[in-house]
Amino acid sequence: MQGYVTPAVMAFSKDCHRMEIDRIVRVDMTTGAITEETAPAPYRFLGGRALTSRMLLDETDARVHPLSREAKLFIAPGLLGGTAITTSGRTSFGFKSPLTGGTKEANVGGLLGSKLARLGIKALVIAGASDDGWKRLDIDVSGVRLDSAASLAGRSNYDLHRELVGDATRNRCAATIGPAGEYRLASASVAVTDPEGRPTRHAARGGPGAVMGAKGLKAIVVDDAGAPAVLAGARKEEFRKEVTKFSKMVIEDPRTANLSKTGTAGVVKFVNRENIQSMPTRNHRLGTWDQADTISGQQIDALSQERGGKMLPCMAGCVVKCAILFNDAQGNHVTTAFEFETIALLGSNLEIGPADLVAELDRLCDDIGLDTIEVGNAVGVAMEAGVLPWGDWEGTKKLLEAIRDGSPLGRIIGNGTVHVAKTYGIDRVPAVKGQGLPAWEPRTLKGMGITYSTSPQGADHTAGMVTARGATVDTLVKQSRHEQLVMMAIDSAGVCQFSNALPGDIATFVNNRFDVEWNDESVLAMARDGIDAEREFNRRAGFTKDDDRLPAWMRDEALPLPDGPSAFDIADSELDRVWE
Amino acid sequence: MQGYVTPAVMAFSKDCHRMEIDRIVRVDMTTGAITEETAPAPYRFLGGRALTSRMLLDETDARVHPLSREAKLFIAPGLLGGTAITTSGRTSFGFKSPLTGGTKEANVGGLLGSKLARLGIKALVIAGASDDGWKRLDIDVSGVRLDSAASLAGRSNYDLHRELVGDATRNRCAATIGPAGEYRLASASVAVTDPEGRPTRHAARGGPGAVMGAKGLKAIVVDDAGAPAVLAGARKEEFRKEVTKFSKMVIEDPRTANLSKTGTAGVVKFVNRENIQSMPTRNHRLGTWDQADTISGQQIDALSQERGGKMLPCMAGCVVKCAILFNDAQGNHVTTAFEFETIALLGSNLEIGPADLVAELDRLCDDIGLDTIEVGNAVGVAMEAGVLPWGDWEGTKKLLEAIRDGSPLGRIIGNGTVHVAKTYGIDRVPAVKGQGLPAWEPRTLKGMGITYSTSPQGADHTAGMVTARGATVDTLVKQSRHEQLVMMAIDSAGVCQFSNALPGDIATFVNNRFDVEWNDESVLAMARDGIDAEREFNRRAGFTKDDDRLPAWMRDEALPLPDGPSAFDIADSELDRVWE
Repeated sequence: MQGYVTPAVMAFSKDCHRMEIDRIVRVDMTTGAITEETAPAPYRFLGGRALTSRMLLDETDARVHPLSREAKLFIAPGLLGGTAITTSGRTSFGFKSPLTGGTKEANVGGLLGSKLARLGIKALVIAGASDDGWKRLDIDVSGVRLDSAASLAGRSNYDLHRELVGDATRNRCAATIGPAGEYRLASASVAVTDPEGRPTRHAARGGPGAVMGAKGLKAIVVDDAGAPAVLAGARKEEFRKEVTKFSKMVIEDPRTANLSKTGTAGVVKFVNRENIQSMPTRNHRLGTWDQADTISGQQIDALSQERGGKMLPCMAGCVVKCAILFNDAQGNHVTTAFEFETIALLGSNLEIGPADLVAELDRLCDDIGLDTIEVGNAVGVAMEAGVLPWGDWEGTKKLLEAIRDGSPLGRIIGNGTVHVAKTYGIDRVPAVKGQGLPAWEPRTLKGMGITYSTSPQGADHTAGMVTARGATVDTLVKQSRHEQLVMMAIDSAGVCQFSNALPGDIATFVNNRFDVEWNDESVLAMARDGIDAEREFNRRAGFTKDDDRLPAWMRDEALPLPDGPSAFDIADSELDRVWE
Repeated sequence: MQGYVTPAVMAFSKDCHRMEIDRIVRVDMTTGAITEETAPAPYRFLGGRALTSRMLLDETDARVHPLSREAKLFIAPGLLGGTAITTSGRTSFGFKSPLTGGTKEANVGGLLGSKLARLGIKALVIAGASDDGWKRLDIDVSGVRLDSAASLAGRSNYDLHRELVGDATRNRCAATIGPAGEYRLASASVAVTDPEGRPTRHAARGGPGAVMGAKGLKAIVVDDAGAPAVLAGARKEEFRKEVTKFSKMVIEDPRTANLSKTGTAGVVKFVNRENIQSMPTRNHRLGTWDQADTISGQQIDALSQERGGKMLPCMAGCVVKCAILFNDAQGNHVTTAFEFETIALLGSNLEIGPADLVAELDRLCDDIGLDTIEVGNAVGVAMEAGVLPWGDWEGTKKLLEAIRDGSPLGRIIGNGTVHVAKTYGIDRVPAVKGQGLPAWEPRTLKGMGITYSTSPQGADHTAGMVTARGATVDTLVKQSRHEQLVMMAIDSAGVCQFSNALPGDIATFVNNRFDVEWNDESVLAMARDGIDAEREFNRRAGFTKDDDRLPAWMRDEALPLPDGPSAFDIADSELDRVWE
């Protein structure tokens, strides 16, 4: 056993509250050394994405190979992580992406963020690479330990979380890689335990699992038993009052009601309409699928009512509860967090339905440790290349099992959309900055195209949703910029986008927690610094303006809207205005 | 049949000489249209690489996908092509590379260049993409015809050239793609007929075969029967005198004597020495191989003498004759143009020997249509990834056959070094700008590292050989720049680097041919323009200074020379000086 006992934690008595989340814990996988420092002053008001993106820029050479010993993986709860604020338990994974070659932050719900925060950990930094096999990292009040994980090697996520966490979700959770991460595949995710002990929450986009795999780290197990609660705030009473008020507001938000009933899948019928056409079909050739009703939130809800399915929160204290738990006809669990993006990319995009079939694919992705968006796009390109026919569910399952087995074809698919296209000489590639397109259609919802193009993250619907139609280009440009800043703020606070937290809400919480005087502008300025750090990393990594573009075919292939064909037609110069 | 009759050619009587090589013939593979124009004035003194790189920049958007309909393939003999100057029959293939994503020129010996020139063709431009299956292009004095090549589809190069050319090499030759090109693999070559009718000359680097494949063009067949000879020059007598003088000089050059005896393979023993260590071994981990004698030029020469092997020219009139024709123990032909780079990358780099085994791999690459350097590196990385063991000749043969079959593993390997590394999550990648490293070792022959880093072509030993040792960095930088310019001049004149033509030699020929007054400076200025065009294309394609770098591990992993460890240690700022 390598490790040490952390005096900082032991100094707290059981009923004491933690003052600051300020431990930066570093694990050198090469030497096994574990060290700790107090976060320096410039990082005090950073958390989540703003922190991981900043540390990535500050500590690593943007030109290193993302899977090299010199690369690092940064894991951080949000600035408000560990508090009672609803949805505030998200965790950011920051790294140089093996998928995009640029900056990357993938954040995830589940139990990890609040437990790290309760242990006072502001950031966990994984550096180096193990030279003697797979390792596990155990973190609790007694310290941080790095041990052999030989017995975990080769195992998939459901099995892993059952062993590592089981029913002990009150205090324990794990962040693991499946076979995909072990193979260092660019679409490999990190699976985080959900409140029922399952590996259904994934830091998925951009390959965090591949980076963790390259370090030789199979699992991180966190146990916060005995850790002090996080201090409610410097202005304790105000903070508590605002927490209650915010939860109430989220509950009363009509958007929440929809999410609580049909999850993100509730949008399927809406976006499949002929005047939206945002349901990717046949590798994004079409925007509507005539069988979309079979994979709609309404249909899933109807099945759930028959089969004992339900809506779950992904973390303690979340009042949204958008996660669909989906059972089969016998009432056995198939998957949890059955999301719209998964349903679109592994469903309509491949012409696969009904919901039962897509749910099985979702479970396989969770188990193997894969980003469903990236894999859905990758399989779509494989279908385009003739590797398997459209709608071939059995074939798609075999591809996923091939990824689990590490076969040549599995590795091709598991390395993502661009890799499949390159392998089969396909020039029509649904990706921006190397990352596969989410479902939201940039040719009909052009603001999404602006976000996909200009986000430092590559094509990412969570980077800034702009679904307005009919707005002027100037409005869309400004809205994309604003929403990208808001999302940076939300991802840095560590709250969920479905809380619909506004910059002002974040400012209020920060003020009461830290006894400062932030306002909307302070929050947006922090967000802009975060975006700038990400853009600077990309610049150093060799990105140019030409990387802030959608694939050319989205300008040529129009979708047939009732009021005329609609292609992406926002000028490059307008895209360049987003950050200028 | 689509096509037309070319009046420009028909106007020549049989005993007339062609005045200018000035036809630019364009084939639109989408529509089948074939058009022709006279080369505009600015192109008059450009040929070969300078011409294809210029046209690539002038006519195509650097951001297009290299395998898209919008991409183009430019094929051009040299400025001195078709004349009696020894070695002047080389042909340049220019395109945006699917391997590097940047500018690319791959030039090739064989029979193509002089026949194109005799038909007056300065450049052949292939645009668009066939929508109705494989095509062949036939070019002769009667015109240019595009026809279905359904009967050629799926066939390999030896078989193809036997059918398309056979013994009729006096007038006919072909340029074809094998299965690798049909699959649009990034290491796919274009095979050009040698004087014995075999497909052993390859425009190989950077994937010209993939681009030709993406256009749907399986074969180009050129027949110059009835074409007028190319005019010896405006100053006819002086030109002829210089041709004779130059041939004599090449024959008397001591470097030629070595090449005529043991080909490029003659250097194996020399570069394998412990104070050179330029024989890549075990995926470039070592620079010497203890069994290198079994694949040396001397050993091959000894075997040849027993087996009826011989040294051949690759084109009519070449006095160097560096091509090794290698037979098996029964005296049956195995391969021709058994080159040092092939022997190093498919031999020592994989720990495969003796020569017979490597020769079989060379033949397979020629037959399938593959760049031996790229494939040797790709298999080396696959061995590093554990896909097959070091030294596994049977396994390597199976990999090549897998490429022929288009299996998933075959496509992984056939897409080159970086692709294999990406597929298997390997961060130690022997490539610059996406192109696999040639044999010449940048850590001991640091001038080669400067060329590999700064050539717009990616890692390319033919871009500018600088093998000096012990020189100052300043000297090496200047020498690399100069040699890169000289190679641009040589590749543009269309002569072979083994003619050792100096800029002054090229100036003399140009002067007598065109009645102008060039000197060394004119030739180097033309070359600099060519390099600038290539660098500008790369800039537009998104390349930055950081692409002008060797892989980082070449700075960390030193080779153990007798006078101490030797890593690549030329500062980035010095690399940037090459073109500033």
